Amino acid sequence: MDKTTIKFTEEIKLKDPIAIEGLPGIGLVGKLAADHLLHQTKAKKFCELYSPFFPPQVVTEKDGTVRLVNNEFYHFKDKGRDFILVVGDFQGMTPDSQYEITGKILDVLKKIGVKTIYTLGGLGTGKVVKKPRVFGAANDKASIKSLEGHGVICKGREGGGIFGASGLLLGLGQMEGIEAICLMGETVGQVVDAKAARVLLSKLSKILDIKVDMTDLDRSAEKTEKELQKLRKLQEQQTAALESAMLGQKSSEEDIARYIR
Amino acid sequence: MDKTTIKFTEEIKLKDPIAIEGLPGIGLVGKLAADHLLHQTKAKKFCELYSPFFPPQVVTEKDGTVRLVNNEFYHFKDKGRDFILVVGDFQGMTPDSQYEITGKILDVLKKIGVKTIYTLGGLGTGKVVKKPRVFGAANDKASIKSLEGHGVICKGREGGGIFGASGLLLGLGQMEGIEAICLMGETVGQVVDAKAARVLLSKLSKILDIKVDMTDLDRSAEKTEKELQKLRKLQEQQTAALESAMLGQKSSEEDIARYIR
Amino acid sequence: MDKTTIKFTEEIKLKDPIAIEGLPGIGLVGKLAADHLLHQTKAKKFCELYSPFFPPQVVTEKDGTVRLVNNEFYHFKDKGRDFILVVGDFQGMTPDSQYEITGKILDVLKKIGVKTIYTLGGLGTGKVVKKPRVFGAANDKASIKSLEGHGVICKGREGGGIFGASGLLLGLGQMEGIEAICLMGETVGQVVDAKAARVLLSKLSKILDIKVDMTDLDRSAEKTEKELQKLRKLQEQQTAALESAMLGQKSSEEDIARYIR
Amino acid sequence: MDKTTIKFTEEIKLKDPIAIEGLPGIGLVGKLAADHLLHQTKAKKFCELYSPFFPPQVVTEKDGTVRLVNNEFYHFKDKGRDFILVVGDFQGMTPDSQYEITGKILDVLKKIGVKTIYTLGGLGTGKVVKKPRVFGAANDKASIKSLEGHGVICKGREGGGIFGASGLLLGLGQMEGIEAICLMGETVGQVVDAKAARVLLSKLSKILDIKVDMTDLDRSAEKTEKELQKLRKLQEQQTAALESAMLGQKSSEEDIARYIR
Repeated sequence: MDKTTIKFTEEIKLKDPIAIEGLPGIGLVGKLAADHLLHQTKAKKFCELYSPFFPPQVVTEKDGTVRLVNNEFYHFKDKGRDFILVVGDFQGMTPDSQYEITGKILDVLKKIGVKTIYTLGGLGTGKVVKKPRVFGAANDKASIKSLEGHGVICKGREGGGIFGASGLLLGLGQMEGIEAICLMGETVGQVVDAKAARVLLSKLSKILDIKVDMTDLDRSAEKTEKELQKLRKLQEQQTAALESAMLGQKSSEEDIARYIR
Repeated sequence: MDKTTIKFTEEIKLKDPIAIEGLPGIGLVGKLAADHLLHQTKAKKFCELYSPFFPPQVVTEKDGTVRLVNNEFYHFKDKGRDFILVVGDFQGMTPDSQYEITGKILDVLKKIGVKTIYTLGGLGTGKVVKKPRVFGAANDKASIKSLEGHGVICKGREGGGIFGASGLLLGLGQMEGIEAICLMGETVGQVVDAKAARVLLSKLSKILDIKVDMTDLDRSAEKTEKELQKLRKLQEQQTAALESAMLGQKSSEEDIARYIR
Repeated sequence: MDKTTIKFTEEIKLKDPIAIEGLPGIGLVGKLAADHLLHQTKAKKFCELYSPFFPPQVVTEKDGTVRLVNNEFYHFKDKGRDFILVVGDFQGMTPDSQYEITGKILDVLKKIGVKTIYTLGGLGTGKVVKKPRVFGAANDKASIKSLEGHGVICKGREGGGIFGASGLLLGLGQMEGIEAICLMGETVGQVVDAKAARVLLSKLSKILDIKVDMTDLDRSAEKTEKELQKLRKLQEQQTAALESAMLGQKSSEEDIARYIR
Repeated sequence: MDKTTIKFTEEIKLKDPIAIEGLPGIGLVGKLAADHLLHQTKAKKFCELYSPFFPPQVVTEKDGTVRLVNNEFYHFKDKGRDFILVVGDFQGMTPDSQYEITGKILDVLKKIGVKTIYTLGGLGTGKVVKKPRVFGAANDKASIKSLEGHGVICKGREGGGIFGASGLLLGLGQMEGIEAICLMGETVGQVVDAKAARVLLSKLSKILDIKVDMTDLDRSAEKTEKELQKLRKLQEQQTAALESAMLGQKSSEEDIARYIR
């Protein structure tokens, strides 16, 4: 295999489908939310994407058989509307393969008539918070207005980057005239954050008016909460230690460190 | 040379040949087993594979001449049946070249009529064991059943990866409808493990009903055994030291480290 | 997106335009100078360049919308003459993509009739200086003579390299018969150096006889000056410490370290 | 520039030319020898090779003008015979580009009728020696015999690698039916070793019956000798320290370290 390859496993005819992408990223927030949605909606797979820029490996299944790592496309219906899920094991391992693979994902979505894409991710802040917020961005102004109506925070991040498929689907989608929206759950970034995924999926389900049973994700979120409490304690101790060590130092000294690259 | 290149050095006509791959990997287990088999069966080379994704070097022979590093295909007969060996100096140095080179290996195997492939490798556990076990995986359910009949452990590794050619031949073979089976000798992973190779080759020869003189490999395995005993002693000392250091720590503390990535 | 892509957003007809390139590099000197010029001249964008070898990300704007990272081409007029500015977020992330992207920039400049290119950069010396000098290089001898007439230091750097777009535009331009000149502001290299950018832009504006309001850049340069004073103090302390530590060592000992690679 | 590019600057007609390659490598031994030969023979440049896999930079000349980094082909005559020199600033920065660039060098050499290639390099041993030896390898048995007649050491390096252009010209040349010989000057490897280059060039000039004035190289070799004496002293001190530290340890303990990868 020399190039990223698309393999349709089912024929599919849809009416104005909305796509939702959740691939591995910061805190696995987007992947956890999308995988939960996949499980709850019992969506059906119709397309697979393979790439030589995924790690060169197979994954062992429960029964001892293997499958090549990939990204997959699923379909489910809710209240007569068509939805697409884009999930997977990995993102491309090199910067340019991220462009190639996201371009191929966009090719599939265009082919089946998708005009709107939601991408799910985490916004890593390095801080443990009690109530993770949901941040948003979009490739058109109308979507920003609509997101803000749902309480999604879109402003105040000027110059901030969104990396990987969740960002590139907006950037490349813009060139193709496809409306694309990124929702990000606030996360400390260093743990697998089911709590942020819970908050993120909850917001998405309200925006799209989809009903999702959250029981399993709630259980995972409780586990995450315990880990976060430990991490919060660690952070408080570190902050206290740092502050006492810094006491008496002029703040201007810190400015150098920030300025020097 | 811009692309991976195949060079047939002999014409060859075979009846339902079975291929056995053993390239460098964890503990060199697969390579040691395949190279021993090559030596014992006096198999004949019929094809060479060169790639710009192997290291840019030649290897010096005993007489001072050199040859470009490569992968090679050999043929031998046993009880009227045709077997192919795939051996070599290196695997591709980048992830995507692993896909390219394994794809080219598969092209050669398909061209000469191979329908079944055995790939040989090591399963690194980080632990020194007295009796290495043989683990297996396959790209179809029937093969799993057959492997289990031979005492190969196929289940209980859900989500585990198989990397490099030994894994990709199963994954890419699956797409081409070629049955492919991976056999892995249990190894600590940090030594050149002729003992694991001995156990692995012994299992393969039983499955395929090939008789192989193991004398040379036995000698190498004895050397490995000595190294492993030293390593085992080191590991026991480390474990003892760690345990006494950890005494009194709550196990929940370890969970954070495991959870944080 | 598999390849670096050019997108003209406006049709443009120019008379012997002169191009000025300032992309991110050492101390951001070239970028700061070019971005300031862009702002002051209210130049108009007419072309965008996208590449899979830029980081795989979008950048968030003030209003929450995003744009794919890129390089951009702008046009402004001064005293009836046409000028082009080449600015951007990033340079290519791999060596070969630097060649590809610079080649594409050159394609755009040739297409619109550019015969002379000025590239802007920093010359990192590792030393904090009070009055940064302006160094120069060119791909033809006549330009060197002209630069020296403007007090730009062109000689005494035999064997010194100029890296990235600012260097490659000279090297690749030479092959296409395009006159290209590199101006470099002297900088310590470790800070965002608006002071070096100020000196550099001042020299460029004299060479090209363009009037530029420097007020904003002066303010930034004052900030840089403060950072540099701190850094200078640090360097003096380090030098003093090093000298006292080295006292009594024969200089020949240092020669080894310099010679051994 | 997307691909490695050949640019003939002069037309050239030769009779059975012999090529000599000396690009940067271990101890710069091969480059020093080839550059000295170039200087002494006043060879004329007839071809340039550019590649996006060289570093993205230009080099400043004495007069302030720049040139793109490259490899170059020169021609000189000696006793009516035609010789080619292949010299340059860099070798390819990635493994696969080494294959590509060496392939292009071979294309040029084939085009002008070269049937024999000598490649020059260093053989790094990590040890400072008083009298560096010259090692050799070749892609055919007849050349080995001839080299041994000149006192070049060709045997006893089974499995040893030769990296980069000096190795690949033998490996790729073999496929094209071109006789290629590698000569390596013994070097510690950590210094720019003009002494090894002196010994290497001396051997080459005897084999090819070329007269070369060695005065300049002798001067450089004397400098190297001084550096090597210091390095030798350092090595002796380290060995002594190591030996006293190791005293009483069983040699079998060292074996583990060697065996574990």
